[in-house]
Formats: sequence, C-alpha cells, structure tokens
Amino acid sequence: MVYDQSKFGIFIHWGVYSVPAFAVPQWPSAEWYWWTLYNGDKTDGGATSEYHNKTFGASFTYQEFAPMFKAALFDPDEWADLFVKSGAKYVVFTSKHHEGFTMWPSPQSWGWNSVNIGPGLDIVGALSKSVKNAGLHMGLYHSLFEWYNPLYIADVNSGSPPTTNNYVTQVLMPQLYDIVNSYEPSIVWADGDEGENSTYWQSAEFLAWLYNNSTVKDSVVVNDRWGLDCDGKNGGFITPSDRFNPGYLIKRKWENCYTIGTSWGYNQNEPLSEYQNISTLLQTLVSTVSCGGNLLLDVGPTSDGVIPMIMQERLIEIGEWLEVNGEAIYNTTFWRVQNDTIAEDIWYTTNLETGAVYAFSYNWDTDSTLYLNAPITSKNTIVTLLGYGHPIQFSASSGHGLTIKLPSLTPTEYPPHGVYTFKLENVK
Amino acid sequence: MVYDQSKFGIFIHWGVYSVPAFAVPQWPSAEWYWWTLYNGDKTDGGATSEYHNKTFGASFTYQEFAPMFKAALFDPDEWADLFVKSGAKYVVFTSKHHEGFTMWPSPQSWGWNSVNIGPGLDIVGALSKSVKNAGLHMGLYHSLFEWYNPLYIADVNSGSPPTTNNYVTQVLMPQLYDIVNSYEPSIVWADGDEGENSTYWQSAEFLAWLYNNSTVKDSVVVNDRWGLDCDGKNGGFITPSDRFNPGYLIKRKWENCYTIGTSWGYNQNEPLSEYQNISTLLQTLVSTVSCGGNLLLDVGPTSDGVIPMIMQERLIEIGEWLEVNGEAIYNTTFWRVQNDTIAEDIWYTTNLETGAVYAFSYNWDTDSTLYLNAPITSKNTIVTLLGYGHPIQFSASSGHGLTIKLPSLTPTEYPPHGVYTFKLENVK
Amino acid sequence: MVYDQSKFGIFIHWGVYSVPAFAVPQWPSAEWYWWTLYNGDKTDGGATSEYHNKTFGASFTYQEFAPMFKAALFDPDEWADLFVKSGAKYVVFTSKHHEGFTMWPSPQSWGWNSVNIGPGLDIVGALSKSVKNAGLHMGLYHSLFEWYNPLYIADVNSGSPPTTNNYVTQVLMPQLYDIVNSYEPSIVWADGDEGENSTYWQSAEFLAWLYNNSTVKDSVVVNDRWGLDCDGKNGGFITPSDRFNPGYLIKRKWENCYTIGTSWGYNQNEPLSEYQNISTLLQTLVSTVSCGGNLLLDVGPTSDGVIPMIMQERLIEIGEWLEVNGEAIYNTTFWRVQNDTIAEDIWYTTNLETGAVYAFSYNWDTDSTLYLNAPITSKNTIVTLLGYGHPIQFSASSGHGLTIKLPSLTPTEYPPHGVYTFKLENVK
Amino acid sequence: MVYDQSKFGIFIHWGVYSVPAFAVPQWPSAEWYWWTLYNGDKTDGGATSEYHNKTFGASFTYQEFAPMFKAALFDPDEWADLFVKSGAKYVVFTSKHHEGFTMWPSPQSWGWNSVNIGPGLDIVGALSKSVKNAGLHMGLYHSLFEWYNPLYIADVNSGSPPTTNNYVTQVLMPQLYDIVNSYEPSIVWADGDEGENSTYWQSAEFLAWLYNNSTVKDSVVVNDRWGLDCDGKNGGFITPSDRFNPGYLIKRKWENCYTIGTSWGYNQNEPLSEYQNISTLLQTLVSTVSCGGNLLLDVGPTSDGVIPMIMQERLIEIGEWLEVNGEAIYNTTFWRVQNDTIAEDIWYTTNLETGAVYAFSYNWDTDSTLYLNAPITSKNTIVTLLGYGHPIQFSASSGHGLTIKLPSLTPTEYPPHGVYTFKLENVK
Repeated sequence: MVYDQSKFGIFIHWGVYSVPAFAVPQWPSAEWYWWTLYNGDKTDGGATSEYHNKTFGASFTYQEFAPMFKAALFDPDEWADLFVKSGAKYVVFTSKHHEGFTMWPSPQSWGWNSVNIGPGLDIVGALSKSVKNAGLHMGLYHSLFEWYNPLYIADVNSGSPPTTNNYVTQVLMPQLYDIVNSYEPSIVWADGDEGENSTYWQSAEFLAWLYNNSTVKDSVVVNDRWGLDCDGKNGGFITPSDRFNPGYLIKRKWENCYTIGTSWGYNQNEPLSEYQNISTLLQTLVSTVSCGGNLLLDVGPTSDGVIPMIMQERLIEIGEWLEVNGEAIYNTTFWRVQNDTIAEDIWYTTNLETGAVYAFSYNWDTDSTLYLNAPITSKNTIVTLLGYGHPIQFSASSGHGLTIKLPSLTPTEYPPHGVYTFKLENVK
Repeated sequence: MVYDQSKFGIFIHWGVYSVPAFAVPQWPSAEWYWWTLYNGDKTDGGATSEYHNKTFGASFTYQEFAPMFKAALFDPDEWADLFVKSGAKYVVFTSKHHEGFTMWPSPQSWGWNSVNIGPGLDIVGALSKSVKNAGLHMGLYHSLFEWYNPLYIADVNSGSPPTTNNYVTQVLMPQLYDIVNSYEPSIVWADGDEGENSTYWQSAEFLAWLYNNSTVKDSVVVNDRWGLDCDGKNGGFITPSDRFNPGYLIKRKWENCYTIGTSWGYNQNEPLSEYQNISTLLQTLVSTVSCGGNLLLDVGPTSDGVIPMIMQERLIEIGEWLEVNGEAIYNTTFWRVQNDTIAEDIWYTTNLETGAVYAFSYNWDTDSTLYLNAPITSKNTIVTLLGYGHPIQFSASSGHGLTIKLPSLTPTEYPPHGVYTFKLENVK
Repeated sequence: MVYDQSKFGIFIHWGVYSVPAFAVPQWPSAEWYWWTLYNGDKTDGGATSEYHNKTFGASFTYQEFAPMFKAALFDPDEWADLFVKSGAKYVVFTSKHHEGFTMWPSPQSWGWNSVNIGPGLDIVGALSKSVKNAGLHMGLYHSLFEWYNPLYIADVNSGSPPTTNNYVTQVLMPQLYDIVNSYEPSIVWADGDEGENSTYWQSAEFLAWLYNNSTVKDSVVVNDRWGLDCDGKNGGFITPSDRFNPGYLIKRKWENCYTIGTSWGYNQNEPLSEYQNISTLLQTLVSTVSCGGNLLLDVGPTSDGVIPMIMQERLIEIGEWLEVNGEAIYNTTFWRVQNDTIAEDIWYTTNLETGAVYAFSYNWDTDSTLYLNAPITSKNTIVTLLGYGHPIQFSASSGHGLTIKLPSLTPTEYPPHGVYTFKLENVK
Repeated sequence: MVYDQSKFGIFIHWGVYSVPAFAVPQWPSAEWYWWTLYNGDKTDGGATSEYHNKTFGASFTYQEFAPMFKAALFDPDEWADLFVKSGAKYVVFTSKHHEGFTMWPSPQSWGWNSVNIGPGLDIVGALSKSVKNAGLHMGLYHSLFEWYNPLYIADVNSGSPPTTNNYVTQVLMPQLYDIVNSYEPSIVWADGDEGENSTYWQSAEFLAWLYNNSTVKDSVVVNDRWGLDCDGKNGGFITPSDRFNPGYLIKRKWENCYTIGTSWGYNQNEPLSEYQNISTLLQTLVSTVSCGGNLLLDVGPTSDGVIPMIMQERLIEIGEWLEVNGEAIYNTTFWRVQNDTIAEDIWYTTNLETGAVYAFSYNWDTDSTLYLNAPITSKNTIVTLLGYGHPIQFSASSGHGLTIKLPSLTPTEYPPHGVYTFKLENVK
C-alpha cells in the first residue's frame, strides 16, 4: 500500500476486555482490565478490582468473560462501510492484544480465541474480507508479549536478557506467520516489546521473511515496535509513543495512533466529557499530516460488536470534512514550513501532484482577516477556501506573507466543523 | 409543579428489556422485546425471535434476562446532573413498563422487581431522591396493563368489557398507591389502557384519591391515558399519541413524548442514521412549545445504567441552546399565531412576564433578510437575536409584518445549533 | 383412595432449592436454603450464607437460581416406574414449598413457576399423569405460607391474629383450587401454618369445597396441617410432626413422613454416614405400620431431575422386601398388641382379610430361638417365615406366648434385608 | 511403592466433562462428551449432540463449561479418608484427560486448567498432599493425546508416522516432567497413544529420565500405554485394555482398571441398574488378584467435587470386606492354581509371608459342603473361614482335594458381602 499517502486510518481494539469494558480516569485504558485487576497498586489504585469483585465476584476469573463475548450484532460490512464514509484509507485491527486472546483461530492459542469460545467466528478473517472488499487496506495489530502467558513469563524469568525463548518460538512466531499467510495484511503493527530487544523477539528473521518471501512482500508496511532496540528506528513508519504528535517535522514516516476518548478498548464508564469534539479531532488530523504523520484513530466496539454511536458520529463528521478538504490531506506531503510562526494554529501541507499549498486554520478571526506569514506569493497566486465556491481576496506582503480577506457567510455557507482550509496556488 | 411552564422534560425507559436491547426498524421499540419475541407475525416479522434463538437459545425465557440486569454503573446523581445540564425541568421514569418488572420493590411484583433480582436496588427511590435533590420535578410512568400477567389476561378473557378485575384490584391499584405514597411524584404518567375503559382500570377512584387525599394532592399532575374513554380528555395534560406534535395550537395542555432515535428502551441495534441531530431535535422543541405543548424527550440507558453517549451529547447540546434561548421557552405561552403563514419554519412564543414575542427560525437566509408576517410592530419595537449582543435592524411593513436585516457573523458568533431566536419587544 | 391400606408412599421435594442443594448438619434441610441464607443466626450459624457468598457471590439472589433449574433429565415415567418397584402405593409431590415457586404454571405465581423459568415444564401435570398411569395414587403437598411473599408478610404484620388476608385470598386459595381442579390429586398435603389458625388460612371453606363439591370429593384424603388449631385434630390423617413415629398405637390414622438421609430436598453436601441403611428403614416401616401409621419416605431429586442413586437403591431394596413381606403390610391393620413387651424389637400387624398375625423381628438370635410373648396359640396355629418355603417349628407356652425354633440357613436362603416376618395363623 | 502388593487402588476421573456429566448406553463414557458431541456418527448416534443443543444451545462450546466447574464442595482430605476406609492402597488421578484440561496450573495449558478457570485450585497438588498424608500412594494418569489440540492435530496431519512433533515437545513432555517434578507421584499412568508409536511420543526419553534421574526414580511405577509399540510390553505393569480381567495367570504384573457403573467420568444419566452390587465387585477383585493383577476401581466425582453416594457406599463395603479378608489379598501372590477346575467360582491366592493358601468362594452351597479340588492337604492342615471365629471341619481326599463342612450360621454371623474366604494352612 502507499501508506504515506493514506494519511488517515482506523484503529480497532476489540477483545475479551470489551466485555467488562471498564476503566477509571486514573488508568483509562479499558483494554488493560486484566492487568489492572491484579495490579491496582501500579495502575488505578484498586478501582477495577473493587468493581470486579462487586459486580462479578472475587472468584470470577478474567477467562470467564470469554463466553460472554457474543459479538451478536457484529457486521463487518457495516463496519467497513462506516470506515469508508469516514474517509479512512486503512484499518488496523487487534488480532491479539496483551491478553493473548486471538481474534482468529490460532492453533497457538487453543481455547483462547474467537472461534473456540465467545463469538464462534474468525473475526480477523471476516473483517479483513469486508475491509478489502470496501477498497480499504487492512492492517493487523499484534501484541508481542502477553501479560500472563506462562511461556512468556518463564522466558522473562530465565535471565536478563532472557536465556530461553520458548514463548517466541512456540507462540509468537507461529502466530505472526499465520496471520500474514492467512489474511495477507497490508500493515503488520507490532506492540508490546516490554523492554526486550529484537534478539529475543526474533523480529529480524520475521521481518526478513515478511519483506522477502511472504505473499505481501511487495505491499506490506510495518511499524517500529519490534524490540526495545528498534523503537523509533526500524519499520516502514515509526510510532514513538501512543498519541505521538510532535508539532514539528519528522522526516521519517510516522504515525499518530490516537483515541477519541481516553480508552482504546470500549470503556462504558468513560464520561462524555472525555470524548473529544470534531474540531479538536480535526486539529489533530491536520497537525499530524502537516508534520509528516498519519493519523490512526481508534474505535472500541462493544462486546456485541457495535461501534458506539458517538464514535460513529465522529467518524462520519471526519468524513464530511474530508469530503470537502480531502485534497489538502490525501496525496500531500509536508511543506517547507509546518506551523506558521506568526499565525499560530496555522498548519500547511502541499499536494504532491499539483504543488498547491494548503493552510489550515483552527479559527475564523472576528476582524475578518487571516495573516499567513510563511507563503511567498507570486503574480499568479490564487487563494480559495475549500468548501466555498467563490474567489477569496488577499493582499500580499512584501517578501513573504499574505493577508486573506475572510468572507462573511451565513451559517450553512461556512465549511463544516471548525477547521478551514485555504488553498494557495502558485506560491512558494 | 408548574407543569405548563416547565416545557422540557426527560423521559427514561429502563427495564429488563435493556438487557437484550434489540429491535429492528420494522418494529423499532426495543422495550417491546418480550412481546415481539412471541408475536413476530404482528410486529417485526420474526426478527427478534430469530435473534433471540441464535443468541440466547430457544429455551432461554425473557425472565432469565433479569439476573443479567446488573446496573453496575448506575449513578443517579450523575443522571440528575446531566438532566440539569440539558435544561430539562422534570423527569418521567418508567416505574413499570408493559413487562411488569417494577423498578421499586413492589410487593405486588415479588421476584420480578429491581430489588429482588438484577440490580438489587430500589431504582425509583434512588433516582427520585437524586432528581429532586438536583431541583427537578420527578414523575413516574406506570403501565396499566402487563402483557403476560396471568391476572390481567384472565380479566380480559372474562368478557368484553371484563367481568372480573382481579388484576386491577390486586396488582395495579396497590402499585399506584404505593408509588405515590413512597416516592411522592410530581407527575403520574399512565400508559397502556389496551382498549379498556376507565371503569375497568378504576382510574376515577385512584385519581380522586390522588387529587384529594394524597400527600402530593396540591402539586401532582397526570396525563390522560387512564382508559380508552379518557384518552385526549382527562388529565392535567394530554398525550394523544406518542410523538404527538400537531403543528397547530391545542388549547388543552399537551405533551409531545419523543425519542432521539426510534426506540424508547435502549436498542443497541439502532443505526446512527436513526439518531436525530441537534437541529432537528430543537425544531421539535420549538414547534411543540409554540403550539402549547411540553417536550418529553426520551433516553434509554444500558443494562449497566449508562445513558448512551450520543444521547448524553444531544442533551448537553439542548442545554447549550437553552442556556442562550431559555427565555423564549420557559415561562412562555403560545402566541396568537403559532406558525408564520408566509415565512414557513417560523414559530412563535410569548413570555408570560415580559410580553416579549419570540420568533424561532430554522434557517438563516442567504439573502440576509428574514421576513416575519404575523407581528405588528410599533414605534418602540426592538428586535434582538438571542445569543448575539448587538442590535438588529429591521423594517416594518405596513399593517403587519417586518423584515429583519440578518447580520453577517463569523462562525462562532452565530448562536448555536441552527435554530435562531429573534426577540420582538413591543409588538402585537 | 384407600389411604389406610396403602401403608407406604413416596414423598418428593423438588424445587429451586435443588439447584444449590446445600445444607450443613446443624440445619440439615437443604430445601430451607433461602431461609438459612438470611437467618443464619437462627439456623445454621451462617454456614449457608458463607457458602453462598463464596460460591455464587453476595449479590447473587436466590431467585437467580431459577434459570439454572434445568430439569434436563427429568423423565416422570422413569420416576413412576421406580416408585412402583419400591412397593409404594402413592406419591406426594411438592407442588409448592415455602419458597413459593410453583411446579405448575400458577397464575398467582407468575414468573416464579416451572413453566415461566427454569424447566419450562408443567412438572405437576407431567408427574401426575405418569404416576396415575403407573397405577399409583398421586398427592400434592402445598405450603400454606411463603417465607418471603410480601402479601403474606403484610398479612402477618397487620396484627395478631392478622387483620388482613390478602395473601390467602389472592394467592393461596386460588392455588389450592387450581391444583385440585387441574390435577385431581388423591391427597392434598398441607404444610406450614406458621402459627396461624385455620380462620386466617380459610381452610374450612376450602376443605368443605374439596369434600363436597370438587371432582375428587369421593376419593381425596387430606392431612391435618391446615392451621394451628387443626394440627393433630382434623384431616383424613394426622402428621403431628415430621418423622413422627410414636412407638405406640394412635387410633387416628397417621403418617410418618420420613427421610432416608437428613434432608428433604437434595443436599449434595450430605455425608454418606447420614443415609440410613435398608434395615433401619425397614424397621421404621414396620414399627410405623404396626402402630397404625403410613410411611411417606422422601426422595430429593437433583436440579436436573435425577433421583440420587443411593435413594433409588434404597427404594429398590424396600421393593424387594415388600415383594416377600407385602402381605404383612398392605391390607393390614394394627393388632391388639403393637410391640412385644418381652421380646423387644418385635412388632405386629394383622391382615384384614385373613386374620393372620405377623410378627416382625429385627434380629435373628444366635441361640436359634425367638420368643414371642403376646400371641395366644391354638391347636391349629401354624407359623411360617415369609420368604422361606418350609414349615417352622415352635412350642407354645401356657397361657400365651410361643417359642419359635429358628432354622439354620445358608446366606441366600435367609429372607432379605434383616427384618424377618413370622406369619402366625390361628392365633389370638 | 510396592505396587504388586498393593492390589487395590482407586481411579478418579474428574474434569470439565463432570459438568455436563452425560452419556447414553450406546457410548457410556461421560468423559468423552466433547468427542461424542461432534462425532455422534462414530459414537452415540447423536444423543449427546441432541442433548447439548437442547439443554445448552448449539452455540454453547465445550470450553464454556469450564466456568461452571466450581468444585465448591471439594475436600481432598475427605476423599482420602474414604479411600483409606475402602482398603485401597493407592490412588490414580486424571491430571489431564483427552480434553486437555489440566487439573494443575500447567504453563502448557494456560487458561485451560483448574487454577485459571473453574475451581481456582491446584487440584493435583491438593489431592496429592491429602492422599499422601493419609498414607496412600498417589499416582497420576495423563493422556498422551488431546482430541482437539491444534498442535497434536497438525502433527498427526503431517504424515504417517508424523513428521512433526510440536505437540509432544511443546506440550506433552513439559507437562509430564512438570507433574513428576511438582507432585512426585508413585505411579505415572499413561493413556491415549492413538495408534502412534513411542518414537512420536518420546516415551523412551521420558521414562529413562523418570527411572534414572527423577526424584521418584527409586519408587515410581508406570503402566505400558506409552505408544502402540509399547502396549502390553513395557511398563512396571500392563493394562492391555480397560476392564482387563483374563481369568488366567498373567506372569507380567498387570492391572484391571474397572468401573462400578459403565462410565469413568460422572454420568448423571446412568441408570441404577448399571451400577454393580458389592458381590460382583468383590468377585472382580478376587479373580483379578488371583491371576496376578491389581484392581484399580474408578469413581467419578460431580463438578462440585462430591463422590456420588452410591460409589462411596460401594467403597465402604469393599473396605468392610477387606477388614475381614485383607490377609488373603494384601501381600499375597498368585498360587500354583488360580481357578479351581472342579469347583468353579473358586479362586486362590497365597500369602507371601506365611505361605497360607486362600480359597475364595462366590457361593455357599445349600448342601453345606464345599469341595476344593486343587489343594493337597497334610496332617497339619488347618482350615478356617475368615471372619468366623470357630474351627472348620474338613475331610481330605486322597491325592489332592478336600471337602469342607460348611457351618450353619445366623445371618449376621456370616462374613459380609457374599464372597467367602477359606484359609488353608499347611497345604501344597
């Protein structure tokens, strides 16, 4: 896939953790339920444990949630249709998270996968098919480590660095080869090196095979989380941290994986106030793309397979915005300036084909002018406002810079959702 | 309570049906699950039955959902806080729906109430307390009939009209007295006469007691669904049908009970496209109030007691709008004209204290003028736009009518959410 | 039915309590689980509560056991076949125990009966049919009171004696009429007056109807537990206490309701040592019958509808014994002496048709003689040992008494199960 | 352990199959539920599948039974006490059956073991401790194959013989080493070679380690089911088939693993008629021991950890018999004749220390004599009946043989349970 030009993708966290779907602000990641349940001292101060004991009983183990993971309303075509409408060009799905539960029938995770227990479905297979049919690229997230896998724990306890690697050879490697061979993903998104180097994780061998011998060798992209020594270095793109968004140009292709609220997996305890509104989300999109990144925006479906309405609505709104402003996002690259030094909250991209420069503004000044400091205009410079059909007047400053005369419009004439894109043709 | 001046209330449908939380568009009311399960031929063509058998098994009875109704995250103070923020002045809660499950420990519904099974809580009690503490009025919905109550069925089968009334004397009446005595509601909202007259339902006796002898006799209000012969006639306000919104003045006080989506109880199968946006909801609010009605807007919490985020967001947006436009809603009454005959989508109210007239517009014309046909201006007429701090110019037509000059504003200067309120002082 | 001549019946305790099926020796009645759960101070010192909280969780209510009551292996014909083989002539089944759960679809116990939840079956109906088809009489036990029924509690709290009787008129009476009309039992076995008189229970009216107007008026029998004032007085037979076995003649027909172990409902926690062996059970049978009683021996099926093997085995062994010794039990009556004053552990009956006298001995003396003090022999006196085909020698004492010469036999020639019956013809 | 002299052990089948606990006569092994569920055509004609779908629903997977495996009443000390009372000298427990669920926290069976799900207990550990504390030897059964383990299936599908052995190296071997190291069993009882040779199973390496390097190397015994090529050959004792009881001398030490009913795992659907009585069980014990075998008698506890009463009762009865007859069983060996050619149903053993010969008789002839053909008497020959305190008369035949004069006793003087032991001192 042409990963760099895709700019916007959808991240999906779905697993057994979607059944309890609980977290508190102190440790807001509901997909970490199993860990917080037994490690409250290091995480949420015991809130999950307290909730669990009261709601399910102290003797109810996490594994016993699996039969309640019914996926009764799961419709991968509906999901794919939503993602298309959002303007996303790719999807990254948790084939396995730290809990170890595989969303496909992994022989290495017998009895702890979505076919043997719970949904009764090959979720990775069904979703991959629908996503690809819808014309999007399909990627697979895979957690390197598993919190409680005894083989992993034994490896870690064998020494530092580990002197055994049974978990890697018996579980991880077979699983990685399996998902590539079975589902031919466009992205393999590793996570969770837990401080071990790629030597332990055998990443080099796997990636060599992936790029040289697999059926997806010509199209696949990977991130950089393949070992402590790899982070920020190797990979088709880097993901230095969750919600990475530096605000300056990173020349190495990078990705900002991001949440609408504060949890990756569905958290039914998340208050409305934590869900970002559409304007803020679009600001993250444009600042990310302006600095050379892609935005991978997460949704967390319910245990029955429904993407919460508020997340669906945000995706639809992003799609509405991209319908108008897409030419400033897709097939663009970072410009010579990312963020206007004078006019704060102005970000730039430039279209790879046309050379047009785009300036994104978070505001619409009440004095009806917008000053852009960086662009150097020419005689032929034309300024337009995406989503507004009429010419825009401006006056060039000497040397560089221009002052745009903002039109006064009725409410519905304004482009939607509070981030405005000014297209500058024939500027430098 | 001063029901007429409250204008906006919150309806809540919560019960055992919130566990399966399923309906299809053909019969979109998820709170009817138990009925559709066995009456697909008359309702949804068998969709619920098919879903039920596949998901829960054919031998799984509806009553077996009750232990799964955990209400694990139910926080009545949070609910009340949300309702306050929405601008609502009262709440109506389903103390019992057609399923017969009572949300308080009713002795007449032993083993089939929220204390004996499921939540383990007196929901009506807890919510009443929180709602009242928050300064809102608390009302209780109560279904007269119960689909499958054998006493009711025996009564109905005894003749037409029924010759026995064991259900009414042994279940319904004790329950109605109980909720009034125990929770002192400001509204008793009856529903479900199923074609029987008030003679069978013994409504007259109950209402006589309610208005003459109960502890809430001086403040309580009731609707009109107390028997087939009562509908649209008796009661403090009428509710001729669900989603009643005639578009013309009804002098009798009435209420438009309304849904954000298409279901009253939570339906996790409801697509995003069925949830109305804030502008449409506000249009319903202003047209309802303009014609003399109150709007009772429904939310359907999940089985764990969470009001879905998209519903919370809509309520918060209504609250934002009412923060700006409240003086045109609360303490108003219908004006001599409701809907402007020339300028469609213009609705009027008038403030009871100040006499100011309010014209609501759904649109903001691109030609920057708004013509109002009905008002008769005077020399002292002043026009303002609620939420905009500057004077508004207008020109009076002869005899009646005026043309408002709409200002051109930046996006954030416009009052929110697409329904604009023009305040007309000193008009007739 | 000719209740007096039936002598031996089977009692069955089956209900929701068969799901937890737990009790401790301090309060060994597993069918009291719901009561002991909340009344440990008065019963088992908290053992049930502790077990419940640990095994099911503190928030798990008793009503939530009902969906787990599956009756998956229930086969009423198999049960009836077993009862026939046991030699029993009648069956008494708990149509409703103190928990209030009805084993038939009672309209007065909607949602808390075996059709609406759990088995999905009319257990009373199915079992009645099978038992009658097998040629046995079918009786129904019915608990007057219900521990937690709010209507009953309100009645009791209304005064002493109660000034209201809503529970009786709305629940109990309709249920009693219903089971008689629907299932036409040969016995109606009341229990649980809880200290209230028959005035409260309205027993007189019901019994008048039962004996004068019901379809079973010519055949039905009832016990005496119809109110505190009735105990030991009224009824076709009396049941002064559970496991009543006075050891002397009671002229009023009475019944010894009895358990094999120590619990009536199935108790999976009951140790083997508490289950009586066949000899002890037979001793209870013969002492009961000798003193004018019937033995009603209880079995407690599992929640899946299986009568525990050890209970089945005891019943089969009783049947083996009755196959040999039945003429000394059925169609007999008490003799002029019940228990031989000299020869302890000797009990007598006499056959109503033939006048033969039967002496039951628990022992087989090592000196090979058995002295019976009470019988007065004649010239024509013949002594036989039931189950042994050869004549028995004896020598008469003067006045009364006789000494039987016990034969020496091989192990398999001895009649089975350690209670031996000597038939005395032509004695007084 | 001195396996040969132990003679009588208890086999225990307990696992997830104890939850459904269902089988039909056509395929009576309830521990095979998971297999019969999907292979009705080869097993029970679909009965289990039909039962499963009706009772649990078609979408309910076998793995979903695990949370219902509560072991709520499991008390290993009580079990051990029962086994001691039965006269057993060792116990063999299913550490893992064909389902793959391990009854200890096996790292190779993460999430599918008794600590992670269900009981929450290390059953093997707890039971081993109690059994050893009670003075018995503890053995562990372990299934080589697992029906549905994907690694095993892949191995088997790799060729014939298999060309891969991932299951063996990654699962089986680590597990076998683990149970030996962790629990130090006296017996390792392999089962389920499924037609593969020991080369695949790597049995030779394991057994070499077990006998040469493990902590139990000096005491451990194994059976012979370590590969198709091993059956009946290798091992401390052989178990040619289940319920093996040839009726003639096998010089190689062998074991008869045997059931009281027809199922190894608890089958709540098993009819009483299938449970053998005590006499038949004792006949199997004496014929087995006479021919050089040990009897390993199986019990199947319920999912809550209760050994069914009827099984407990049989064990107690065996204990009663061994209390009287133990010297003819323990520390004995086969005699020069096993089964008397003339007097059928006579079996012999001889005590290793005293040289006394024991003749077991199933019958007690009505003509009061018992002829034994094989023994050669001497002047000093003494005959006694175990359990009877008085001398027994006999007359010797010329050459060989003797006729015992059977005493006539009262019922309770006869030794118990229908198998009689005559001790012959000073015979050849």
